[in-house]
Amino acid sequence: MADFLLNIELHNNSSYQQQIREKLVNLIKQQAFGDKALPSSRKLAELIGVSRNTIILVYESLVDEGYLISRERSGVFIHPDLLLEPSLSTQPSDLLTNSQTPNWDKRLQKHPSQFTSLNKDKDWIKYPYPFIYGQIDAKEFPVYQWRECSRIAESRGKVHEWVEGFINIDDPELVTQIRQQILSKRGIVAQEDEILITLGTQNSLFLIANLLAGKHITFGVEEPGHADLRHIISLCHSQVKPLNLDSEGIQVGQQLKDCQYVCVTPSHQYPTTVTMSVARRKALLEQARTDNFVVIEDDYESEVNFIEKPLPALKSFDQHGRVIYLGSLSKSLSPGVRIGYLVADKKLIKELRQLRNLHYRHPPANNQRIIALFIGQGFYDSHVRRMRQSYEAKWLLMKQGLKQHLNQCEINATPGSFCFWIGLPKEVNSDLLLKAAAAKGILIESGDSLFLKEDAPKNYIRLGFSAINTDKILMGLAILGKLLNDLQQASHKT
Amino acid sequence: MADFLLNIELHNNSSYQQQIREKLVNLIKQQAFGDKALPSSRKLAELIGVSRNTIILVYESLVDEGYLISRERSGVFIHPDLLLEPSLSTQPSDLLTNSQTPNWDKRLQKHPSQFTSLNKDKDWIKYPYPFIYGQIDAKEFPVYQWRECSRIAESRGKVHEWVEGFINIDDPELVTQIRQQILSKRGIVAQEDEILITLGTQNSLFLIANLLAGKHITFGVEEPGHADLRHIISLCHSQVKPLNLDSEGIQVGQQLKDCQYVCVTPSHQYPTTVTMSVARRKALLEQARTDNFVVIEDDYESEVNFIEKPLPALKSFDQHGRVIYLGSLSKSLSPGVRIGYLVADKKLIKELRQLRNLHYRHPPANNQRIIALFIGQGFYDSHVRRMRQSYEAKWLLMKQGLKQHLNQCEINATPGSFCFWIGLPKEVNSDLLLKAAAAKGILIESGDSLFLKEDAPKNYIRLGFSAINTDKILMGLAILGKLLNDLQQASHKT
Repeated sequence: MADFLLNIELHNNSSYQQQIREKLVNLIKQQAFGDKALPSSRKLAELIGVSRNTIILVYESLVDEGYLISRERSGVFIHPDLLLEPSLSTQPSDLLTNSQTPNWDKRLQKHPSQFTSLNKDKDWIKYPYPFIYGQIDAKEFPVYQWRECSRIAESRGKVHEWVEGFINIDDPELVTQIRQQILSKRGIVAQEDEILITLGTQNSLFLIANLLAGKHITFGVEEPGHADLRHIISLCHSQVKPLNLDSEGIQVGQQLKDCQYVCVTPSHQYPTTVTMSVARRKALLEQARTDNFVVIEDDYESEVNFIEKPLPALKSFDQHGRVIYLGSLSKSLSPGVRIGYLVADKKLIKELRQLRNLHYRHPPANNQRIIALFIGQGFYDSHVRRMRQSYEAKWLLMKQGLKQHLNQCEINATPGSFCFWIGLPKEVNSDLLLKAAAAKGILIESGDSLFLKEDAPKNYIRLGFSAINTDKILMGLAILGKLLNDLQQASHKT
Repeated sequence: MADFLLNIELHNNSSYQQQIREKLVNLIKQQAFGDKALPSSRKLAELIGVSRNTIILVYESLVDEGYLISRERSGVFIHPDLLLEPSLSTQPSDLLTNSQTPNWDKRLQKHPSQFTSLNKDKDWIKYPYPFIYGQIDAKEFPVYQWRECSRIAESRGKVHEWVEGFINIDDPELVTQIRQQILSKRGIVAQEDEILITLGTQNSLFLIANLLAGKHITFGVEEPGHADLRHIISLCHSQVKPLNLDSEGIQVGQQLKDCQYVCVTPSHQYPTTVTMSVARRKALLEQARTDNFVVIEDDYESEVNFIEKPLPALKSFDQHGRVIYLGSLSKSLSPGVRIGYLVADKKLIKELRQLRNLHYRHPPANNQRIIALFIGQGFYDSHVRRMRQSYEAKWLLMKQGLKQHLNQCEINATPGSFCFWIGLPKEVNSDLLLKAAAAKGILIESGDSLFLKEDAPKNYIRLGFSAINTDKILMGLAILGKLLNDLQQASHKT
């Protein structure tokens, strides 16, 4: 028996107690000990190489939990109840004969895997120079403040408020915080019944499309623009119409006339970064009124925007309930936690709430509560303030580095944006640069999949900077510049 | 200024420090202090009625966070940066003129609010006798063990593993735990690429329907059965066919022949509680093979089933990949946290994963990790063991009470089930009893909405017992029995 246990290689990522406990639990379930006594705490401590106290604590905790039973003078044993667990026979999977398995290709009504997106590299963290967008720098996550809120939410006096779920309403504390602390800053006044908590912007878009998209409906989307927005709309059977942009954002006029919905990112156009001017915002809303379309505003970067006086949300100019507003906490807090919010006409929110109930009930209640506390305690604001300073510093370095090393490119950037939209010299295809860069530890993203049109340019890249270390920015851009020069020279020779 | 502060009514639900801090943060944002000094800590402590130390700690924390600035000999002030926050004008909503607002009734492609479900009473907790199903008793939630796992997941060394999200994969630690600790107990052997983490059973059903349902597809569902399952299928444009049951579960044979999918709850039929016999499981799978349909197994109660040797999952008998298996942790852990899992053919899982990505990316990463730890540390198993004992005790009391007080009813129950399916005497309509019971503080659920057919019986009720206090069960049933007698006598007179 001791042999099994000698298999524990202790590492430093978690406490010894935790590791030993986990290993023992596993062994117990595999019936590894039978009805024999476990080693004494002294002996086991010697075998593994830890203090006797550690083993004593583990044993005691397993006795408390009912895994082990202590018999006076005999030692510690597996609890008899556990020795009776039925061992269920399992069907070996090699009995599957292909002719009898369902034909999934035929059964699928949709093929979502066909949609190409910006394939985010799961291993981005291994790159020294990850010029990617959307990921945060984990070191900046406010761990202690998050844990404080977590602790409060999970205290015995509070846990009952979320552990049973919310049965179709949202956490009232979170809704209050979002109204008072977040929407108010964007100039938006909303009642409780005009707000829906979601799992982030992607989820908000999907809920809307699932409810409003259909065969004869056209959604206008920015070109270039958010690929997964287009995918959702297509999945929900609507037409997607690419809309032209200029230096003030989406162009109003003829191109919008056959759209029932127009999707915009006015704060910083995704990905070109342009900010929609006040005049353009008003013109868009005026045309929405006269041509009867609805605007869907994705305000995804607003929170951590480091501009001193960001423009209020498009929705704040909306006097006729024609804007559906989407906000999110992913970029300002954590993409992993997944909370966003929708603000719209209460009739629409009511139906969206019912739809959400059928989709997944509600966003996890514990996270809603932790975030409500995080905002209410002021931690969110101070975190955002720190992020802004950090982003501003990085943005300036990016600008400097691009000017210095990639001056031959078309550099699109707006103060406060989270990425730079770079047009490479026409003779250089973005894919080539991507490959060359990856070989040097530089991760960049091609702009190709952000375009809908077939004849779209293939020489755009997007450089983010939220994930990369500040002190790697200039070096990374220098290397990238050199690679670009090499590629240009190579193409001139051919 | 002190006036504002005197408004703080301290309560005992959270620490004074937390409440005072939250209030101050609010006042700061409302620009309530201007550029004047805040009261001294001694003065504020006197005003509010707390110790000076408490105020000092709050002030220090707000200085750390950048809300306040300490000026030597002058006191504490709002940080100058915050005095420059722009106050954005907001559009009053009474400018909305109805003729210019979008016509949402016309725009809606679906009307999910039309679906009636068992309307869960948000205030169920106020009833002394909540004989409802699906809610857990919050006092049973393993708070300390959950917090322990939360603490580990949120430790500085671990937080980076989830804070950036998972980019379309699931938390490998959670998948491992589910495979090794949970699926194995149900007799299911599954590879990693055959598992998808979801937001619970409702979400699993929606993902499947969204991918596989369509105009000419028929889903067979148990009658009576899960209402929201039917709603999702209809929402995804498929036909729903009600299927007859008997004492062994869903009947095989002719009625299944025109179904492409058959949805079953074999562990305990929802809501009649019957367990599908081994013979019937094999017959169902045999017909699935010969008539080429796929079975969707909702194994929703299996974990906390207190029967000594529960039957293995239907999926464990499946040799041809014809069963899509759905599991969940809502009833055994917490409905609020929302984690479930799907096990199916890897082709299907691949598409479901892409679809999930478009729906909402992935279930919150922090919760995936906390639950992985919770299972891995053995806390889940010991919690389930405790729940089983508790449920068994309650089940026996329910049985006893029903026999004693509602003996004139048709009592359907199976050891290990989570509810009792009661057929009232035919002359008593379930709605009448519901109303009478509510007036006496008894919450019960009508069976009406669980039937699809128009001519379905209206005299069934469902009694759950997971939420009600053990010591209230017999009394509640006694009162219910008396109410039923009264209603019967009243109907005989008319």
